[in-house]
Amino acid sequence: MPPLRRIDVVLDSVKRLQRIGATAQKQHPADLAEVLSGLSDAGRLSTFDTLVAQNSRLAMEALSELDAEIGDALLAKRPPDELAKLFLELPTDDAAALVDRLPDDVSAEVLARMRHKDAGDVQHLLAYGDRTAGRIMNPEVFALAEDLTAGEAIEALQRSREVEMVFYLYVVDERRHLVGVVSLRRLLLVSPETPLKRIMTSELVKARVDTDQEEVAQEVANYNLLAIPVVDDENRLVGIITVDDVIDVIKDEATEDILRLAGVPADEHVFTSPWEAWRKRLPWLGVNLGAATLAALVVREFQATVDQFVVLAALMGVVASMGGNAATQTLTVIVRGIALGELTWSNSRRVLGKEALVGVANGIVLGGAAAGVAWGLFGNPYLGAILALAMVINLLVAAIAATLIPIALRALKIDPALASAVFITTMTDVFGFFAFLGLATAFLPYLQRGL
Amino acid sequence: MPPLRRIDVVLDSVKRLQRIGATAQKQHPADLAEVLSGLSDAGRLSTFDTLVAQNSRLAMEALSELDAEIGDALLAKRPPDELAKLFLELPTDDAAALVDRLPDDVSAEVLARMRHKDAGDVQHLLAYGDRTAGRIMNPEVFALAEDLTAGEAIEALQRSREVEMVFYLYVVDERRHLVGVVSLRRLLLVSPETPLKRIMTSELVKARVDTDQEEVAQEVANYNLLAIPVVDDENRLVGIITVDDVIDVIKDEATEDILRLAGVPADEHVFTSPWEAWRKRLPWLGVNLGAATLAALVVREFQATVDQFVVLAALMGVVASMGGNAATQTLTVIVRGIALGELTWSNSRRVLGKEALVGVANGIVLGGAAAGVAWGLFGNPYLGAILALAMVINLLVAAIAATLIPIALRALKIDPALASAVFITTMTDVFGFFAFLGLATAFLPYLQRGL
Repeated sequence: MPPLRRIDVVLDSVKRLQRIGATAQKQHPADLAEVLSGLSDAGRLSTFDTLVAQNSRLAMEALSELDAEIGDALLAKRPPDELAKLFLELPTDDAAALVDRLPDDVSAEVLARMRHKDAGDVQHLLAYGDRTAGRIMNPEVFALAEDLTAGEAIEALQRSREVEMVFYLYVVDERRHLVGVVSLRRLLLVSPETPLKRIMTSELVKARVDTDQEEVAQEVANYNLLAIPVVDDENRLVGIITVDDVIDVIKDEATEDILRLAGVPADEHVFTSPWEAWRKRLPWLGVNLGAATLAALVVREFQATVDQFVVLAALMGVVASMGGNAATQTLTVIVRGIALGELTWSNSRRVLGKEALVGVANGIVLGGAAAGVAWGLFGNPYLGAILALAMVINLLVAAIAATLIPIALRALKIDPALASAVFITTMTDVFGFFAFLGLATAFLPYLQRGL
Repeated sequence: MPPLRRIDVVLDSVKRLQRIGATAQKQHPADLAEVLSGLSDAGRLSTFDTLVAQNSRLAMEALSELDAEIGDALLAKRPPDELAKLFLELPTDDAAALVDRLPDDVSAEVLARMRHKDAGDVQHLLAYGDRTAGRIMNPEVFALAEDLTAGEAIEALQRSREVEMVFYLYVVDERRHLVGVVSLRRLLLVSPETPLKRIMTSELVKARVDTDQEEVAQEVANYNLLAIPVVDDENRLVGIITVDDVIDVIKDEATEDILRLAGVPADEHVFTSPWEAWRKRLPWLGVNLGAATLAALVVREFQATVDQFVVLAALMGVVASMGGNAATQTLTVIVRGIALGELTWSNSRRVLGKEALVGVANGIVLGGAAAGVAWGLFGNPYLGAILALAMVINLLVAAIAATLIPIALRALKIDPALASAVFITTMTDVFGFFAFLGLATAFLPYLQRGL
C-alpha cells in the first residue's frame, strides 16, 4: 500500500533529520503530523524544535494538522514573542483556532505582540460565535471586481499569491457585495475580452457569518461544492470556507454524535489525560447513579413480592437489559437520521410507527423465547408468560421513548445526541423492573401455583 | 437562514410544476432530491415521472442524491429498456452504484439493453471489490500527454466536455502510466510554450483500484486534496475519485460506526421498512437475550444469598448499570479513536493505562457515593462497603474489557465497532452481578449483623 510506504519513508527521513540535522523541506505537513503523532512526548518536542528552526512555516502547518491536545502541548512552553511569530506563518483561520485554544492570559499577550493588522484579523474571527461560519472561514478570499474582463481576471489571478485554493472566483461590486461566481475553468473557455458579468453565475450558494458550521457542511456536501463564500448581514464577501475545512467539520460532528450518544464529553480523544477524561465523564455517570438508585427504589417497592418469589430477582434483569439494548438501537437510528437531515417533522410520525411496530415484534419474538427459557430453567409456565408480557410492554415503551425524546430535544434546539444511551437505558431499566415486578405482584397467586 | 428559504422556493416551484406542468430545468439536483424526500410515496412517484419526462438527466441526478431505498423505489416499476436509457444520463460511477442495487435478474436485463461500451464500463466498475477505490471511482478521467506544452494543454482542456470537476490535470506517458500532476492554476501562471514536464509535480498521492475506500478518504482528508487519481497495479491511470465522493464515504463510514456500536445493521436508515429493520436487529437482540440469560443464571447461583437478604436484589442492578455505562464510554472513545486513525498499536498501552485509571477513579468516587446512598436507604454500612467494592472491581473490568476487545478485534481485522455496546454491557451485567453477589455471599454474616 503506497500510503504506508510513504510514511515509512518520512519516518526514516525524520530519524535522519534528528540525527544529522538534514532538512525536511519537501515533506507534506500531513506526513510530518503523522510522524509527530507516533513519537514519544520528548521525541516529538525535540523534533518539532528542529523543524521550527529549519522551516517554521512547515512546522506550524504540521502542528495545525495534529490533534488539539498534542499540538497545544508543543506550544505550551514557548514565550509569547515566539508564538506571535509562529502564528503568522499560518492562514488567519488556522492561527485563530490555535490562539483560541491558548489560556486567556497567554492569548492576550500573544495578540499584543502581533502586528496590529494581523492581531485584528485574528480577533475579528474569534469574535464570531463558536461553531459558526465566521469562526471557521478564511478571511483571505480572492475576489474580482464585476467590471473586469476575463483577460483582466486572469491577470489579477496571476498577480495574487497567498490565496487559499482558488477554484471559484467570486465577483463583487464596488462595495464588496457578492454578486456572482465564475469558475476558473470557465474563465479559460471564453475569449479574454468577455466581460465577467456575462459569464458569471449570479445564483450561488453562500453562508452567512452566523450560519452554524454543521449547516455549512451540509450545504457544501449537498451541492458538491469545493468552497462556499461567507457574507456578512449586508451580503458583503468576508471570507471563504474550503471543502477541506468542511471535511474536518463533518468528522468532528460525527465524532461528537458518537461520543455524546455514549455519554462522553464531545471533545474527548484517546489521548485526553486520565484526569481530564475522569473529570468530564464523571457527571454523566453521576446522573446514571441517580437513575440507577431510582431503579433500586422501584425494586425495593416490590421487595415483598421478590421475597416470596426470589426467582424474580434473576429474571428482572433480563427485561431491563433487553429494553436497554432495543432502546439503544432505536435511539441511534433516530439520532443519526436527524444528523444526516433525513428525519424531519413531516416524516417523524411514519418513523414512530415503524419503531413501535419493530418494538412490539421484537417483544413478541424475544419475549416468547425468554418465556421458553424461563419455563425450562425454573419450571414455571406462569413466570414465562409474565416475562413475555413485560418484555412486550418494555420494548414498546423503549421504542416510543427512544424515538420521541431525541425528536423533542431537536424541536427544543437541544442536541438530540444528548439523549444519550445513559439516560435511555436507565429509563428502560426503571420501566422494565416496574412492568415485570408489577405484573408479578398482580399475578403472584398464579406464580406460586406454578411452582 | 438562506438555505431554508431556498428550499421553500423549490418546494413552491415543484408544487407549481405538479399543477401546471412548468419546468424545473434550472433547479439543482440536491434541491430536487430534498423536495422529493419530503413528499409522500405517491407524490414522489408522480413528481419524478413528470421530471423524467421533462429533463431525464436532472431527474436521474436528483435520484442519485436520494437515500438508496427511496431512490430504488422510484426505479422499481420501470421496464429494463427505460432503466438502461435513464442510467446513461449519469456518470459511470453513479450508474454503476444504481445498477449494483438492482435485483440480479433486472440488472442483467438492463445491462443487456445498454450500448456495448457503456454496459462494459459499468460492469468493469462492478467487478472491483465492494468498498474499494475501483468501485467508487469515475473512470472518465481527463489526462494530458506528457509531451504537451502548457498552451496545448489548455487547448485540450477547452475541447474536453463531459469531464467531472477538472482541477488537477493528470499527466500520463504514451502507455497511460501516471507520471505527474499539474494544477489548473499553475497552467495559467506559465507561458504557453512551457513543456508540461517542466511544471508538473511527479510526487503525487494516488490510490490503487483495490485500496479500501476508507483509506482513500483518509488520504484525501489528510492531504487536503480535491481529488485523487486511481491507478491499476501497473500504475496506469484508470479513474478519479473527487472530494464530493470522499465526503459521502466519510459520512457513510461514520454512520456505520455509530450504528454498529449500538447493534444496528450498518445499512439501516430511518426509512428502512419495519420488516427489514426488525429482521436485521433481531439477531443482535437474540445474542443479548442469550447473554442476559447467562446473567440470570449467575443470579440464580446466588439465590440462597438473595433469599436471605432480599435488599441485594434492588442493589445488584446499580452495580451492573454503572459498569455498562462506564464501559460504553470507554468503548466509544476507543472505537472512534481507531476509526480516526489516532489509536495504533504503539500507543495502545498508554490508552489502556488511562482507561484503567479512569475506571478505578470512577469506581472509588461513584462507589463511595453509592455506598452512602445504600447506607441511607437501607441503614446498613456493610452493604454500602460491599457495593462500593463491587463497583470499583466492575468499573475496572469494564474499562479493561472495553479497551482491549476493540483493539484485539482490530488486530484480527474485524471491525472494532462490532464489539458493540450490546456485548460489552451484557458482559458488565454478568460480571457486576457476580462481583456484588459473590462479595455479599462471602460477607453475609456481616451484612446480617448490620441490619
